[in-house]
Amino acid sequence: MGEHIVSAFDHDLEKIEARISEMGGLAEELLAGALTSIETRDTSLAEQVTARDKKLDQMEMEIEEFATKVIALRAPMAQDLRLVIAALKICTTLERIGDLSKNIAKRAASISKLGPLPTTPSIIRMGRATQAQLSEVLSAYSGHDTKAAVAVWRKDVDIDEMYNAMFREVVTYMMEDNRMIGAGSQLLFIAKNLERIGDHTTHIAEMAYYIQEGAPLGDDRPKGEPVSPAID
Amino acid sequence: MGEHIVSAFDHDLEKIEARISEMGGLAEELLAGALTSIETRDTSLAEQVTARDKKLDQMEMEIEEFATKVIALRAPMAQDLRLVIAALKICTTLERIGDLSKNIAKRAASISKLGPLPTTPSIIRMGRATQAQLSEVLSAYSGHDTKAAVAVWRKDVDIDEMYNAMFREVVTYMMEDNRMIGAGSQLLFIAKNLERIGDHTTHIAEMAYYIQEGAPLGDDRPKGEPVSPAID
Repeated sequence: MGEHIVSAFDHDLEKIEARISEMGGLAEELLAGALTSIETRDTSLAEQVTARDKKLDQMEMEIEEFATKVIALRAPMAQDLRLVIAALKICTTLERIGDLSKNIAKRAASISKLGPLPTTPSIIRMGRATQAQLSEVLSAYSGHDTKAAVAVWRKDVDIDEMYNAMFREVVTYMMEDNRMIGAGSQLLFIAKNLERIGDHTTHIAEMAYYIQEGAPLGDDRPKGEPVSPAID
Repeated sequence: MGEHIVSAFDHDLEKIEARISEMGGLAEELLAGALTSIETRDTSLAEQVTARDKKLDQMEMEIEEFATKVIALRAPMAQDLRLVIAALKICTTLERIGDLSKNIAKRAASISKLGPLPTTPSIIRMGRATQAQLSEVLSAYSGHDTKAAVAVWRKDVDIDEMYNAMFREVVTYMMEDNRMIGAGSQLLFIAKNLERIGDHTTHIAEMAYYIQEGAPLGDDRPKGEPVSPAID
């Protein structure tokens, strides 16, 4: 944690890391709940996810306020400053992951009114892979594990590929059966939201790397084939 | 800009504001170009938008680096610190607006292969409204105009409503004509990207408000009717 010896300052930095980890844990729970609500068509669980997203918004504001105070009062330098600035960025990213999870959960209500959807297993598989990535990047962050952060960052290509496959699968169902169009559109948005959560996860990986290394992670992350109709 | 008299510091803060405005101008250009590429099915313009998005990524990194240096070397306080922290947040938001614009432009290529799409005028209308919001929030930011920032923030509800109307319109076309499903899915994503750009614009409005007022803008922003299938 650097060379400084001001213990109140150490305590502040530890508190920032702890709050980010706590917020990350809640974001992961919301994503897990959203996926279960789609899988089991549990609209009351979907409502819980929506309600708990407010807590995430509040945590974001608290972290922002505290991090700003730490900058103003302690004038952190080098890695300490990077940790505080990364916290300001990561808390916004986690808030967006919560928003996207809430958005997925809200679609459970629309989907619950429809007949069986043949694509549900694929979307849940994609969702659980996204959730695993989020979980791993949070561990990499709290364990200051740069290697693990890079590994998560590289693996996002798998999520992108699942998204492209999912897009083609859903559009095919929509073309075969007109009654699938409403539900299919919902599924396309759920897949897109998961793909975005994957992107946000790589952003956290970049921040975890930046804190430790003091340099950006680079711009050559492999991406899923962009030629398909799904695009990015 | 506060009471301090260190002129090199004033210069740093002005530079941060100028770079954010410059970056905002480029983000707005990319959005405008993306919309024109959809409207006129101009795939070479779409490619230009994609290429210029790299410049936006580079500007984000430069602003982050400079803002971090300013915090470390000048230890800004109060409104000055808020300006620097807001810049760190706004540059990420502008980078995302660029990404979403690039994503819209990429869809021009898919759409250009298809027959006439009856919904193009609606999506362009929604796009131009989103672009106007972005332009207004950037003026509010550079003019330190809190009232204008709040006005933009409140008007995002119009974008949300256009998005919901658009969603229903496109799904109706898809149901009436199966050959519209591929193009319709592209249009749904374009509409969703515009709605997200609208959300990012409100985030810039919140930051412009926070710099001047030192308090969050509040959480009671009106939102478009969430009961429709489009959701959020």
